This record gives sequence, C-alpha cells and structure tokens, in this order.
Amino acid sequence: MSTTQMDSQTRKQVINYLGDFVTPSRLQKIQQVLSQRTRHLTVVLEDIYQPHNASAVLRSCECFGVQDVHIIENRYDYEINPEVDMGASKWLSLHRYRDGEFNIGACLNHLKQEGYQLVATSPHEHDFNPVGLPLDKPVAILFGTEQEGLSAQALQAADFFMRIPMAGFTESFNISVSAAICLFELTNRLKKSNIPWQLSEEQYDELHLEWLSASIKTPELLIKRFLETRQAKH
Amino acid sequence: MSTTQMDSQTRKQVINYLGDFVTPSRLQKIQQVLSQRTRHLTVVLEDIYQPHNASAVLRSCECFGVQDVHIIENRYDYEINPEVDMGASKWLSLHRYRDGEFNIGACLNHLKQEGYQLVATSPHEHDFNPVGLPLDKPVAILFGTEQEGLSAQALQAADFFMRIPMAGFTESFNISVSAAICLFELTNRLKKSNIPWQLSEEQYDELHLEWLSASIKTPELLIKRFLETRQAKH
Repeated sequence: MSTTQMDSQTRKQVINYLGDFVTPSRLQKIQQVLSQRTRHLTVVLEDIYQPHNASAVLRSCECFGVQDVHIIENRYDYEINPEVDMGASKWLSLHRYRDGEFNIGACLNHLKQEGYQLVATSPHEHDFNPVGLPLDKPVAILFGTEQEGLSAQALQAADFFMRIPMAGFTESFNISVSAAICLFELTNRLKKSNIPWQLSEEQYDELHLEWLSASIKTPELLIKRFLETRQAKH
Repeated sequence: MSTTQMDSQTRKQVINYLGDFVTPSRLQKIQQVLSQRTRHLTVVLEDIYQPHNASAVLRSCECFGVQDVHIIENRYDYEINPEVDMGASKWLSLHRYRDGEFNIGACLNHLKQEGYQLVATSPHEHDFNPVGLPLDKPVAILFGTEQEGLSAQALQAADFFMRIPMAGFTESFNISVSAAICLFELTNRLKKSNIPWQLSEEQYDELHLEWLSASIKTPELLIKRFLETRQAKH
C-alpha cells in the first residue's frame, strides 16, 4: 500500500507508530513547523534563471512556512544551488511545469481552479502593495525573470498587481529580496488575521507522514511491517 | 570655495542656481527621494565578503531611503558588484573603516557618540523582532559575515539583539534577505510614527547639492562661475 493511498485513519496510526522512531525534540520540531505551514499563500516562479536567486526564494518560502512553490521552466532549466538553498527544498512541495508547450497556462489554470487569486509582481504596474493586498481568498504570488520580469501571458492572467513601494533612485529589487519582503509581510498579516490559513487536517497528516519518513532511515520497511502486524491482529 | 565650506545661505543659492541645469522631472525626483531619506536608521556591515550580498544590501538601503552605510573591513576587502548594486551606492554615504587596528571599535564608538542604539542581528540571540524593536532613538543595525555572523566585539557592544521570526526548519536567512526584511519593516514603522526620522535641513541641503552636482556635467565650473558673478554684484 502506498502512503498516498492510505485512508486517513490508517495514516494517523502510521504517523503515531513512526513517531517512536524519531527523538521527541525532532517530533516536536516537525509538529511545530507543520502548525505554521500554509497553502493559503503560494509562490510561482516563471523562468528564473539565476540558481542563487531561485534557491534564495525557496529558502524564504521554507522560513516563512509557504509550502507550495510552482516552478515554470519555458526557457531556462531550473537548478537549485545547494549553498543558498540550505536544504530548504527538502521541506517544500515543488510543482514543476516544463514538459508542455504552454507551461505558464497549465500552471495558472491549475491555480485558478484551486481558487487562487493570481498576483503579478511588477516594478511598474501596481494595484496594491504588500501591506494592503487582500488576503481573504488564497493568493498566488507570481515572480518573473531577473531581466524581463513576467511574461505577457502571466501579466494578462493576473487578478492583481503588487509592488513594493520604493523610496530611492533604484527602480527595482533583486528577486530574492522582493520575494522575501512579500512573504514576510503577507505571512505576518495572515497570522494576525482571522483567515483560516493553516493546513487542513488531511494536508497536515500527509506532510506529517512525509516529514517523519524523511527523518527515518528505512521508513518503507517500518510502514510495511506496521501494516502487516496490524492486519495479522484483525 | 569648496561646497562643504559654504555657509547655509550660499548653499541654498547654489542649489537654486544648479536646479536650472537639470530637467524639471529630474529635480522633482531628487527632491522626492531626499524627502524620503533618513539617518534615524543606519546599517553596519562587518566583514561581508561575498560581493553580491554586500551589493544587494546597498541596493536595499537605497530603495528604502537609508542614507548611511558603515562598512568595516577587518578581514575582507569590500567590493561592490556593479550588477547587483545597480548604481545604488552612488546615492548613499558610505563610511569605511579599514585602516586601523580596531575598525569595529572605531565604527561602533563613533555611532554611540552620535546617539545610535546598536542592534545586533543574530539568528540565535533575540531581544526583539523587527515588528517590536524600539525606534524612538536612532538605530544602527549590525550585520555580520555570512558564516560566522558578527564578531564577539560587535555582539558585546550591542544594546539590543534582533531576529526575524522563522517558521520553518531552515535556521537563518541569507544576509541580503535579512537586511531587506529589517529595512522594509523598520522604515515602514518609522514613516507611520511621530518620530522625526527625516533629514535635518542642513543634511537635506548638503545632499541636495551633492546629488544635483552628480546630475550635471561640470558642476564645479558652474558653481565657481555663480559664486564669482555673485561676488561681482556685491
């Protein structure tokens, strides 16, 4: 039985069982991080080609508890720079769109269907700044390439534009800086709000099982043994 | 007469005169940026050795209107990466400490005498986060090297510690990301407060003259001609 096919009750039992194979402090850390994870906010990276930038964005997502990152690769292969990433991507759900002809469309349609408002970041257009962006509906923040920014297709699909107010001569931020500021402000605002930003019980359990498994040497073996023992008892 | 020796009235006249040699939109931009500049908040970089990190911090300072950056070079020569800097350092006052034996002491003593509270950023220690840090007195934010963080001397001299709250497994932010988040939050809070964070009239005029001069081809010649004409009139 694969872990994704498990019914929710079995999953809870497996989680409970696997919890004995990690230290109490590790278990506590996993649960503490899970309680701060959100899918109310998600990040879309369109054709980011400098590995240190993309990796720094992943690191910020992990630090601020943004679980899902959607990576569109039309023109540039996406590489993670292990030095900047610091292992952050291990704890994120990366969704990659690179095989089709209309990767950006596939990604954005998917997010729309999931109920996300699409927010294009752009140094030029601006409907909102991070302090005022509406957060009542789930929000996907779109970041474009270092030089050209987001594609015309992404800009057209956007429900809102967002821009970080700037007070100097310099006209734009580095993308990793821009993403970090947006995520800092938006997650701060979410956590102070009444919006249900936390993971659903099912999402929580799925990640709990995944992260426990990632913290144990032979999780498949242990799960198999547990399920067999349980079946024998019935 | 050097522009720094000018009395304040002469300086105002020179500024007024030079204003005719730039476009109205340029003049407006300069004055708009000046009105958003602050010395209430300043940044200290201790031995940052990756040029793209230091440059990204300068770019963030410029974007958020933080005029002074203090750069301590004990172990590493400081280089600006023109690609990341985007010309930002041209509009900042960079103060470098690299020739003495106790560069960090020289810098921090100077800032203390100027009335700054020293705030050490550290992923471990934390008195405050950027949302709660007291801002009533001028504040200098200290950032240390990528690997080791601030020196023992800098940590000892600090009045407060500050840390960005993190919700993931990753334990620290990249320094350029960390600086940008701190500056975003602290300048936002300053601008919403009643604290007199703007430049004094004299500081404003000094920079006004400097920036006008940087926007004109032969400023020294124009200033000399103006002063001679004025003297001839008296």
